[in-house]
Amino acid sequence: MTEHNLHHTIALLTRTPAALNVLLRDLPETWTHCNEGESTMSAFDVVGHLIHGERTNWMPRARMLLQFGETQAFGPFDRWGHVRESQGKSLAQLLDEFARLRSENLDALRALNPQPEDLARRGRHPAFGAVTLSQLLTTWAAHDLTHLHQISRIMAHQYRQAVGPYSAYLGVLQCAGHSSP
Amino acid sequence: MTEHNLHHTIALLTRTPAALNVLLRDLPETWTHCNEGESTMSAFDVVGHLIHGERTNWMPRARMLLQFGETQAFGPFDRWGHVRESQGKSLAQLLDEFARLRSENLDALRALNPQPEDLARRGRHPAFGAVTLSQLLTTWAAHDLTHLHQISRIMAHQYRQAVGPYSAYLGVLQCAGHSSP
Repeated sequence: MTEHNLHHTIALLTRTPAALNVLLRDLPETWTHCNEGESTMSAFDVVGHLIHGERTNWMPRARMLLQFGETQAFGPFDRWGHVRESQGKSLAQLLDEFARLRSENLDALRALNPQPEDLARRGRHPAFGAVTLSQLLTTWAAHDLTHLHQISRIMAHQYRQAVGPYSAYLGVLQCAGHSSP
Repeated sequence: MTEHNLHHTIALLTRTPAALNVLLRDLPETWTHCNEGESTMSAFDVVGHLIHGERTNWMPRARMLLQFGETQAFGPFDRWGHVRESQGKSLAQLLDEFARLRSENLDALRALNPQPEDLARRGRHPAFGAVTLSQLLTTWAAHDLTHLHQISRIMAHQYRQAVGPYSAYLGVLQCAGHSSP
């Protein structure tokens, strides 16, 4: 548990909004607003989902874990909760909002300054049961990566016909997607 | 064929080096220098592979296609050709080199300014046979995405134990990888 290097987790969490900003801002909507078919997300939707997580998932749950331990389960997380919040916004607005919220949440995490004994403390996940603060925080970082993985797959999907026979060599086009979004 | 919007392809190709730079520069080596096991790549290796593609694959093949058509097959591409070239270099050096080479190659592509009839021209791939310039150029972009997909998977792999029960919800950890690197 204490092997978890919080500095490494924060280093990744710090970079994701800027990386998505550089990748997606002002990119043609072919790339950012197309999805992989019915009931799937576009890159735009994924940024909205990441924002929703900043508002309702990671730091709120970390605080709840430290306050209530296992006595109270985390509230449910709405995986499509971003849809209403993103309506009428541009991708540029969402990228700005994600960067701002992430920065505020990381400031709060640094202020919390959890020690090894805090990282080992347990809360209660509604589906999994006991989870440690360390598991929650590493998942925050791995969740960024699962959505970077998803965004690269969604974008590649838009070129699946255009690449012709090369599709056999492009691993991302063989990925059916493993994410619960 | 002519549906291929070259502007969209160039828009993505332009952003990849900067996105990888923001994501990877100065990140702890836990993230950047670890791989997924024997004979797999680290994020560092992937950047080296992308550099090797800039030097020997995309624009050299585009020029060859336009010069020789189907009469001469593209030379082989060494998928591990980056190993020697990357030796002794830092990730920061590789990121700089990738950005510089990509920028030069996109300048060359813009100068070439291929028209719809050029995009429909065919060359000969040693494995697939006839491929069009359009397929080659869209693959250049999709190849960036296949490796962004791979990098996010490699990095997430480093946290596969740390996340505990959350691994069930993290799609990227279910991805076995589909890439021929």
